Parts: sequence; C-alpha cells; structure tokens
Amino acid sequence: MDNLNSFEVLHKDKHTSARLGKLKTYHGDITTPVFMPVGTQASVKTLSPQDLKDNDVEIILGNTYHLYLRPGHGIIKELGGLHRFIGWDRPILTDSGGFQVFSHSDLRKINEDGVEFRSYIDGSKHFMTPELSIEIQESLGADIIMIFDEPVPYPSTYEYTLKSTELTTKWAGRCKERHNKEGQLLFGIVQGGIYEDLRQNSVKNIVGIGFDGYAIGGLSVGEEKEQMYQMTGYTAPLLPSDKPRYLMGVGTPDDIIKCVSMGVDMFDCVMPTRNARNGCLFTSNGKVNIRNARFAKDENPLDPNCNCYTCKNFSLAYLRHLFVSDEILSLRLNTIHNIHYYMSLMREIRSAITEDRLSELMNKPLTLPSPLRGED
Amino acid sequence: MDNLNSFEVLHKDKHTSARLGKLKTYHGDITTPVFMPVGTQASVKTLSPQDLKDNDVEIILGNTYHLYLRPGHGIIKELGGLHRFIGWDRPILTDSGGFQVFSHSDLRKINEDGVEFRSYIDGSKHFMTPELSIEIQESLGADIIMIFDEPVPYPSTYEYTLKSTELTTKWAGRCKERHNKEGQLLFGIVQGGIYEDLRQNSVKNIVGIGFDGYAIGGLSVGEEKEQMYQMTGYTAPLLPSDKPRYLMGVGTPDDIIKCVSMGVDMFDCVMPTRNARNGCLFTSNGKVNIRNARFAKDENPLDPNCNCYTCKNFSLAYLRHLFVSDEILSLRLNTIHNIHYYMSLMREIRSAITEDRLSELMNKPLTLPSPLRGED
Repeated sequence: MDNLNSFEVLHKDKHTSARLGKLKTYHGDITTPVFMPVGTQASVKTLSPQDLKDNDVEIILGNTYHLYLRPGHGIIKELGGLHRFIGWDRPILTDSGGFQVFSHSDLRKINEDGVEFRSYIDGSKHFMTPELSIEIQESLGADIIMIFDEPVPYPSTYEYTLKSTELTTKWAGRCKERHNKEGQLLFGIVQGGIYEDLRQNSVKNIVGIGFDGYAIGGLSVGEEKEQMYQMTGYTAPLLPSDKPRYLMGVGTPDDIIKCVSMGVDMFDCVMPTRNARNGCLFTSNGKVNIRNARFAKDENPLDPNCNCYTCKNFSLAYLRHLFVSDEILSLRLNTIHNIHYYMSLMREIRSAITEDRLSELMNKPLTLPSPLRGED
Repeated sequence: MDNLNSFEVLHKDKHTSARLGKLKTYHGDITTPVFMPVGTQASVKTLSPQDLKDNDVEIILGNTYHLYLRPGHGIIKELGGLHRFIGWDRPILTDSGGFQVFSHSDLRKINEDGVEFRSYIDGSKHFMTPELSIEIQESLGADIIMIFDEPVPYPSTYEYTLKSTELTTKWAGRCKERHNKEGQLLFGIVQGGIYEDLRQNSVKNIVGIGFDGYAIGGLSVGEEKEQMYQMTGYTAPLLPSDKPRYLMGVGTPDDIIKCVSMGVDMFDCVMPTRNARNGCLFTSNGKVNIRNARFAKDENPLDPNCNCYTCKNFSLAYLRHLFVSDEILSLRLNTIHNIHYYMSLMREIRSAITEDRLSELMNKPLTLPSPLRGED
C-alpha cells in the first residue's frame, strides 16, 4: 500500500472547512469524519467485536501504555498482533503512550532521551523512549500509529510549552526514523499549548518531518472550551489539506460538529463509553441520567428515534432497574446505545457535508457534559 | 390451557429412572430434563435475552424476593409483567421468595402466618405470607410459580424438621387456595430435611393438596453430597410420575446427570453464571481457571469442542487478559461459554435418554466444584 496516497478528500463543504474523506488502511477504508471508540485494555469496555460491528464502528483506538504493561506487546505480537488478539478485523489506531505516561505516573522523570515511569499495576520501573513506543506499536500492528510526544499540561507557561514542544519535535524525528513497518501509517502530533505562535511553529516542524496524518494534541486537558475551539480553529487550517487531521481526546457531540467544521477528520474520546457506565446517555432529546426516579415506571424506550438494540428491546424502566441494581447488563446496554448515538452522529455529519449543510447541524446545539479524555 | 395435562413423559430410559418429557407452558413448550439459568434481579447476569436465545436457553428463573423489593412487583405488573419487562418471550419460573427470606435476613421472625424480615437494600421491614408470595408471583406473571415454603436449614434436628415441614404443608394449602391465575402452573415443594420418613410424609401431604409439578426442596444447602443424592433418590420415585419433578438449587454437571437418572426433570443453579464471573469455566476437558498464568500465551480456544461465541472467536490468552484486567467483557464471554456448556450438557442428556444410554454418561464423571445456590 502506498502511504503517500492513503487519504483522499472526496468533498468539501461549501460553507465551512469541513471535508468528507476516505482514509485507506491495511484493514480497510475509513470514511471521515470518523469517531474512534476507545479500547484501552484491548477491549472497548463491555462490547464484543460483534457489538461494535452491529453499531457500524469503523475503527477503534488502543492504548500502547496499557498494552505494553499488560499483557505486553511481545505476547500480542507472538499471538499474531492486536487485531487477531481481540478478534477485530477492521482498522485500529494506537496512541503512543505519551499521554498515559505523563498523566498516570506521579513518579516520572523526563529527559531528552525519554521518560522513566512506574507501572500503575505493580509499581515496576520502566523507561519509555520514542523508539520503544514505535517498537511497541509495530508489534501491536495497528493500522495507524502515533509519534511519542509530550502532551503539554494545562496550564503551562510559555517557556515550558516552548521547551516541551521542541522536545516533541525531536522525538517526532526519532519516531519517523525508527518506523519501519510497511503499510502502517504514522501520524505526527502538533503541540504548542494555547500559544498560537508555538502551535504555528510546531506545525512547521512536524509537517517538515512529514507524516501520513497529523494530530492536534494537548487539547481537552482542562483548558476552557473556547480555548480548545480557538486552538483547533487556528491549527487545523495550517495542516496540509491532503492529509487527515485528528483532534485527540475530543469530545462532546457539539465539540465534534464544531471541530469538523474547522476541518478536523478524526476524533476519539472515552465520553460515550464512560458516560454509559455512569448512567449518562445521549439521546435525540438531550442527555438522560438513567438513574432518575422519574423513569421507574416509564415503558417508553430511551430514545424513540433510535434503532439500537437497547432502544428497540427495552424500556426506560428496565434500563433504570438494571442500573440501580448494579446489573452488569446495564453497562453493556448503555454502552451500545451511546456508541450507536455517536456513530449516528458521525453519519449525520458526513451526510451533511455531502449536502453542504453542516452549518445547519451547528445551529442545533445539544447541551452535553464536558469531555473526558484518553483511556477507557 | 389445561394445567392437568401440562406435562407429558415422552420416553423412559430403559436402564435408569430418567425420563424425557415435554412441559407445556403459556410461553411455549419446554423439553425436559431442563436446566434453568438464574436471573435474580430480572437479568441473567451479563446476558441479554438475545444471548440466552443464541445459546438455546428454554426457560429462566426469577427471584420473587428480589423483584418484590426492587423494582417492586406492582411496577412490573403495571409494565405488562416480567416477560415484557425484561424482553424475554420464553418461559419463566419464579421461586416463592422462601429461600431468600430465610437465608438473607439475620433479623427475621417466623410465625404460623408468615415471616417478618428486613430488606437487604434499605433495612425496611416486610412481612411475607404464602398469600403475598402468590400475589407477587401472579403479578410477575411467570409461567411456573412456586409455593411459599420454609426451606429447612442444614443441619436441623428431627423435631425442628418435623415442625417446619408441617408448616410448609399448611402454607402449601394456603398457596393453592390463593392461586387464581389461569394458565400459570403452581408447583408444590417437598421438604423433610435428611429424614426419609419426613420426606415421605411431606410427599404425601403436598401431593395430597395437588399441584402441577413438585419440587424437592431443602437440599444443596450444606449437607454432604451423598446425603443430597440419597434424599433425591429416595424422594423422586415417591412423586407422581405424570408430573414434572424439580430439584431446586442443583447443581454441578455430575449432580445433574446423576439426579436425572433418579427421575428429576428440572434444575436451577447459579453455578454456571457465578463460576463464570469468578473465572471458573466448564470445558469438555474439565474445569479451567482462566486466571492461570499458563494461558498467557495460549492461542487455542477455551474448549476446542465448543462452538459458542466465546470459543469460536477468542483465544485462552485473550480471555485470560480480559479477566486479569478486570474487563467487563470478560464476565459476559465467560458466562456465554458456561451457559452454552450447561445447555449442551442438557441436550446430551436428553439425547442419551432417547437412546437409552444415560448410564453411559454417568460413567464419564467430570470433576467439578461444589454447587452454589439460589440467587445470582
């Protein structure tokens, strides 16, 4: 497969910067804009591969950090790679472990070579480098892998952000150099915090190295939503128009529509899955907390406009009963619904772009909770 | 439906007391011997109705005690009954709540009228009577319901057992009198502890009242396995041959085969579902603890002779990974397999009876753990 031509823009929305695209990967084509459910520990929590397919999931995300620690990338490689291990024959993207190494470990030491951190499982000491991250991701065999970066925390000073972004650039070069797996796409990550000139500089440096796609990193980490929009709106147009653009860790349905309009093609977020397990469900009538006592006798489906397995077979009363009774089935039924909601949203977005009416979608804002980030 | 002719013996094994039968219920026919997975809180834990059907489950058990306390039988009745509430259109049996009222409640007072007990959810005080148990079970609308009895604990003295069994007889009469739902089968329960003459007496009294089927109660509650076999072997032949016989709370695959050979037609036990969630899986090669480190790199299926969703799609290594990583999917995949195993066992038993070779099955004993009991 020729990585140079892995992405194709099929249509540009007439009124926004949104694009409809096709991304070719080893395990099949993805239509963009796309949302990637998060499967941290080799499982999109509660769902089987069949559940994912039944809900038209095209690509899922795996977490390098977790899979490196357990069961270990060596074992997964020996067993034929991540696809075979989890029984999923559609595309997978793995992150580089950067976000988790930095967010998980109280005890971590960073130097130019890499990051020393302790395992959240057994406290054992590890040293992650750009080269090791790529080696792990090659062993896992995802269709799309990410460079090892330092996601700049929020808030960070200009000076810290400058230094960190320079480090990410160096590590990006080492990742590119180390990467050696044919057919596997390698994406760069742009950092720069909330500073436009640092973002601009990061774009220049990362694009200068040259990758199969570009992620906007370091957002959705605690900054104001307006800042996230501003940075995305500033950065996305600077990125090459012939490569996919991936906004990491975003977000709510509103966020996704808005950032698609800025030209973003790919998203991931734990929101649909984690919210589901907390009883927070997305519907065409807004957000629903399934624990609410007003559903105790409600024989209606969760969302009358939804045709997922959950909505077609069960009442609000039953879903509430399962949730308040701590029944495990509740977690799966809720997750099926939320994933179905997100997949429907993406279909609606793609169809709106095709018909040059994405701006209409933006004028029907949904009130939804703040985004969560990174692993699930 | 004429309850008098709800059961038909289709074939008797030539060498044992095993029978192949058909039990007609409002929601369809059941072929016996049958095993009923336990759905305590209106859910067979981790499984959807579709999962149950995919694994050929014919009938499930619900717990009156739990459903009375949460969500309440009034709500379930208002919502069209238990079948509709849980989205299951095949037969359901509900127990009477007797076992739970006695086993759950440290604070309980028993008198001839009924039992005062406290809710395990909120400590609230309740008074269960034979009449209330029947009222609840009529509201739930199961196809088969049970009389409210006092399961005699083990060990109990002869005197206590005598008194308790007499009480069960009185309550059985009150249940029969109160029962008023057409098409709903009412089963009596024989008690008598480990005392043959009390068992014999209980059979006489309970059969004298007259029910659509008869359960052997008060076993699998801590007595020696040999005592359970002995009491079942003693009691089963005393029961009318033209009615179904149900051994409550049993058991392991070995127990089931053995008790089928004694003429038992129906079983329930939390073993396949609870063991699954503890990582203990039944296979054609014996018991497997999925946590075992020797499976870490094992690419084979859990059971090469099994065609359940779990065995057809995943390796031992992946199942182990999910379990040790506390992934929720693990619980469902394990449960699917164990339920499939039990359903296959029952199919094998029925086919063996048809061909007069049940005794052959008994000569292939499996080593399996002790039975668990009653709710799940």
